Formats: sequence, structure tokens, C-alpha cells
Amino acid sequence: MLSENFLTELLSKNKKTVARAITIVESDYPQAEFLLNSIFTNTGNAYRIGITGPPGAGKSTITNHLTKHYRSLGKTVAIIAVDPTSPFTGGALLGDRVRMSEIGRDEGVFIRSMATRGNLGGLTKKAIDAADILDAAGYDFIIFETVGVGQSELDIVQAADTTIVVLVPESGDSVQAMKAGLMEIADFFVLNKSDRPGADQAVTSLKTILMFKPHDEHSWLPNILKAIGTENYGIKEIAEEVDKHQKYLNSYNLLLTQRKEKLTYRIKEIVESKLIQQLWQHGKEQLILDQIHSASNLSSPYQIADDILNSFKETIIERD
Amino acid sequence: MLSENFLTELLSKNKKTVARAITIVESDYPQAEFLLNSIFTNTGNAYRIGITGPPGAGKSTITNHLTKHYRSLGKTVAIIAVDPTSPFTGGALLGDRVRMSEIGRDEGVFIRSMATRGNLGGLTKKAIDAADILDAAGYDFIIFETVGVGQSELDIVQAADTTIVVLVPESGDSVQAMKAGLMEIADFFVLNKSDRPGADQAVTSLKTILMFKPHDEHSWLPNILKAIGTENYGIKEIAEEVDKHQKYLNSYNLLLTQRKEKLTYRIKEIVESKLIQQLWQHGKEQLILDQIHSASNLSSPYQIADDILNSFKETIIERD
Repeated sequence: MLSENFLTELLSKNKKTVARAITIVESDYPQAEFLLNSIFTNTGNAYRIGITGPPGAGKSTITNHLTKHYRSLGKTVAIIAVDPTSPFTGGALLGDRVRMSEIGRDEGVFIRSMATRGNLGGLTKKAIDAADILDAAGYDFIIFETVGVGQSELDIVQAADTTIVVLVPESGDSVQAMKAGLMEIADFFVLNKSDRPGADQAVTSLKTILMFKPHDEHSWLPNILKAIGTENYGIKEIAEEVDKHQKYLNSYNLLLTQRKEKLTYRIKEIVESKLIQQLWQHGKEQLILDQIHSASNLSSPYQIADDILNSFKETIIERD
Repeated sequence: MLSENFLTELLSKNKKTVARAITIVESDYPQAEFLLNSIFTNTGNAYRIGITGPPGAGKSTITNHLTKHYRSLGKTVAIIAVDPTSPFTGGALLGDRVRMSEIGRDEGVFIRSMATRGNLGGLTKKAIDAADILDAAGYDFIIFETVGVGQSELDIVQAADTTIVVLVPESGDSVQAMKAGLMEIADFFVLNKSDRPGADQAVTSLKTILMFKPHDEHSWLPNILKAIGTENYGIKEIAEEVDKHQKYLNSYNLLLTQRKEKLTYRIKEIVESKLIQQLWQHGKEQLILDQIHSASNLSSPYQIADDILNSFKETIIERD
């Protein structure tokens, strides 16, 4: 159990307690669910921003400068950086060690790296749980920063209120982004490193692709902003575009609708993962192995699957 | 129901029937499971090869030339090309139209593109089901060709007996491959476009990374082959390396062990997807919406999830 004190410190943004709370969730400690249930009524005040894009697009630089900008306005910022890691190297490659020393010492900034450890699906859930903790702790902005390479990473940024896709002028980058599903999720684009050759062409090609997106007069049309992250150029404009998008969502009462849709999706995921966990709890895996290894077995995977399912249902009925 | 005739034609490699059988599986037609159960005892004879790598590495070119090479040895080949698609463009970007005209007319070659249509997880299952159909139909080699960008694509190539990761000498490519989890799954590497500058350096950096992989004297050590796909250079060596890997697996009785492990994993996935399907069949989704939209509701997502689960279990008990 968690002490009263723990929750009080968490809600008053004590950095150590916040970090510990995220560890509880990230490591699936027994108190995790109790913790998340306890803080739920304190969530909903932070504005959540997702920043994604292909590797090397400069997402971290943009995130850092955007954070500094929000700090200059007196706002607090929490960053959840999600790194795809290799199970065999064991650790995150995209370290945030550099920036830790830069903005991490600021009391109004919280940075957390979350790695996959081989289970991407679980990571999405944990990143969103962590955002709830940071939301309850009172951070004004929560930024999910993740490389846009797979469905799970997209799920994470889609949990945000505003999603920014960062691209660079390199040839074919926008086409790759389209293939990776990044075009659908962007509330706006940032063309970073826009002093490089091909920047105008990239903007044109992005605009062309966006024209194919169905829209009407009330639709939000994704803008394309130019930036040079390393020179802090275009950062204020990014913050303004986030603000513009937030106002748009509010004016059509979409922020609440969108959050409810995302909550529905999240609950579905939780139900499914809990059910799956219960499914494999009672030695059902052994049934598969027994069937596969029995020399005479000629059952197809689908027939074996049905046997397992029936056996799981019997377990539920017996426990009743 | 499917006619006797249909199954006979399928097992005798009638291209039209094979294509139709894959469509049944891909479109989740009601006969899909009956079909897969019927052919299961005819599977297990094809050798399955996975070819993956970053976008633009030249996987299709390698696949095409490898196919021609196998054909020159009198072997039949089926290719399952898995394309990540964009829900908003609607279709596959990485078409195989070009090669269809080249090797697709060959009676001993079967090519099928499978697209995601927004559900990557389902695609893995369907690609493996399709491989079973092609296996039963009697193709000697089945090649899964997929871009290595996400977990689901990796799942598909991991269903293969031998997995080939194709890279190019571009700087950082091997590091990106490591981040994407490609280093773990490779039984060997093909450094394509190896006439480009940086090829030797790329080989060295790959070797360095591979040194960190735990191994003992009986381990299979992933080799790194150089190739120039467009010039048909290095293709014979790829086929020889596949053969060498197959012999290694057989000599340690690993082929059967590995296939049983993969079958176990596959059955688990089937059980889970069937259970999830049943979960949402009985209006359980409405329960989430009701709870979320009730103004007084202060339940956390985890509490709502528990309510849904209990309600699902009651449904199972009642139906008993």
C-alpha cells in the first residue's frame, strides 16, 4: 500500500515521488493499479502534446526548445521520451543524458525515458499511465516524444491532445512518413532543418499529399511550419500552433469528445490485456505444448486454440 | 462450405484456387477456418524464408533474383509481400506491379501482396495462414518479404525458418536496424548495394555489433554477405547461405524445435484474438461508453475495465 503522504507529495509535484510513482507503473508493481485509481480524479488538467517523426528528424531538439519556451511563459512541462530499444543491447540508444543536464535541473521540468524491454504494447499503456501521474502531479504540459516507426509508437502520440509530426527536407521523407501512418495523425507538421536544400519542395509535396485528406469547412487543416531546432528558429510558432489547435478543439467542443474517444480506446486495451493475462494464468500454455508435442496430434492451430478457449471458459465457470 | 474439388485443386497448386483460398483467409470469410483446418496435415514441407530490412534496402530486388535462382534449380516459389499501407491513401505504396510482369507469369512462381488496412496484428496472422495455404499447395519455398519497421512486420519474418536482413552501406543504417530490433532476428545479413562507398565500414560495424550477441561453440553465427541486387551479384551465395542455415538447423534437430516454438506462439495469438473477438461481441463496448458519458462517473479506466470483465464472465457463465 502507498502512504497518504506519498499521494500528497505526488499531487504537490515532488519530483522524487513523481519518479517513484512512474517506476511503480512502469515495473508493474502490485500497487500500480491502486495508485492509478487514487489519482484519477486529479487528472484532466494537463495539455498533452505528442511529438513524433522519423529517426534523426530532430524531435528531441524541438522538444527541448519548446520546453524552454513554455518555461519562459511560467508553465511547467513533463516529457515522456519513448525509445525503441533492442532486447539484445538491453538499454535505450536515444539517451536523454545530454538534455538532462540542460533542462533537467529546472524544477519545473520533469523528464522520463521509457524503454520497451521487448513489449511495445505494454509500453503504450505504461506511457499513458505515466502521463496520468504527471497530469495529477500538476504539470501544465505533457509531451510524449517518440520515434514514429511502428503502430505502438503511433498509439502513444495519438493519446495526446495535439500531435506534431517532425520531418526534414530529405528526399522521400514525406513519402516514408505517409507509409508509416504519420500523415494521418499529424495535427500539424514541423519541417525541421528547413535551411537545408529541398525545404520548399518538401513543403509543396506535403501540401499535395494533404490535399487528398478528406475535409470540410469545419475541419482542422494541418499546417506546415518551418523550423531550425538547433537555432531555436520557429519554436515560438510551434507553441502558437499548439495553442491555435487547442482553441479550435475547444471551440467545437472537440477536446472533451476526443478525450472520451481516446479513453474508450484505452479502456478497451486495458480490458483486453487483463483478460489475456487471466487466460494464461492457469497453465493453459501447457495445454498447447502437450498438444503440439503429442506425436499423433493432427489438429490445426485453430482447433487447438478452440480447445484452449473452452478450457479457459470452464475455469471461469468453475470459479463462479 | 468449400467443395472437394476446391481442396483438390488447391493441393495441386492451381494458381487461381490458391489465390482464392488466400482471399478467403485475408477477408475473414466464414469458410476460412474450415479451409485452414482441412489443409493443415498437408503443411510442413515448404521451407520458409523471411526477408526484411529498412525501406529502400532493395528487398524486392533480392527477392526477385533469389526467386529466379530457385526456379533455375527447378524449385517452385511463393512470395508473400507485406506492405505497410496508409489508411488514408487506401492502397499499397510498395506495389509489386513491376515484378508481376517479370516473374509473375512463371507458372512456378506465386506472388501475393498483403496490405494492412489498419490492423497490423491481424495481418501477421493472415500472412502466416496464407503461408500454410501455399505450403499445402506444394510450393518448395515461401518467401515473406516485409519492411522492417514495426513489431508486427518482425513477427511475420520471425515465422520463417530462415530470416535474412537486408541492409545498405548508408551511414547509421546498421544502428537504425539495431534500434528496430532487426539485429536479433537475422540468421544472416545481406549488405546490398555493396558497391557503394562505406560498404566495408558497414560490414565492420555490423560485425562489431554482432560480437555483443551471446553465443557458444554450437551457436549459429550470422554471416554478412555482400550483394548488388540490381546486378544479380551475390544471389547464388544467398541461396547457399539459406541452405547452410537449413542444414545447421537440421543437424541439431532445431528445425522441428523452432517450428514447434513458433507454432506455440501462433496458437497463443489465435486463442487471444478469438477471446478478444468474443469479448466485444455482446455489447460490452456500450458499457464503456455509458460509464464514460455518465456525468457523475469518477471511476478510473482500470475500475471501468474490471466492470467490463466481470460482465463478460457473467455472459460466459449464463451461456453455460
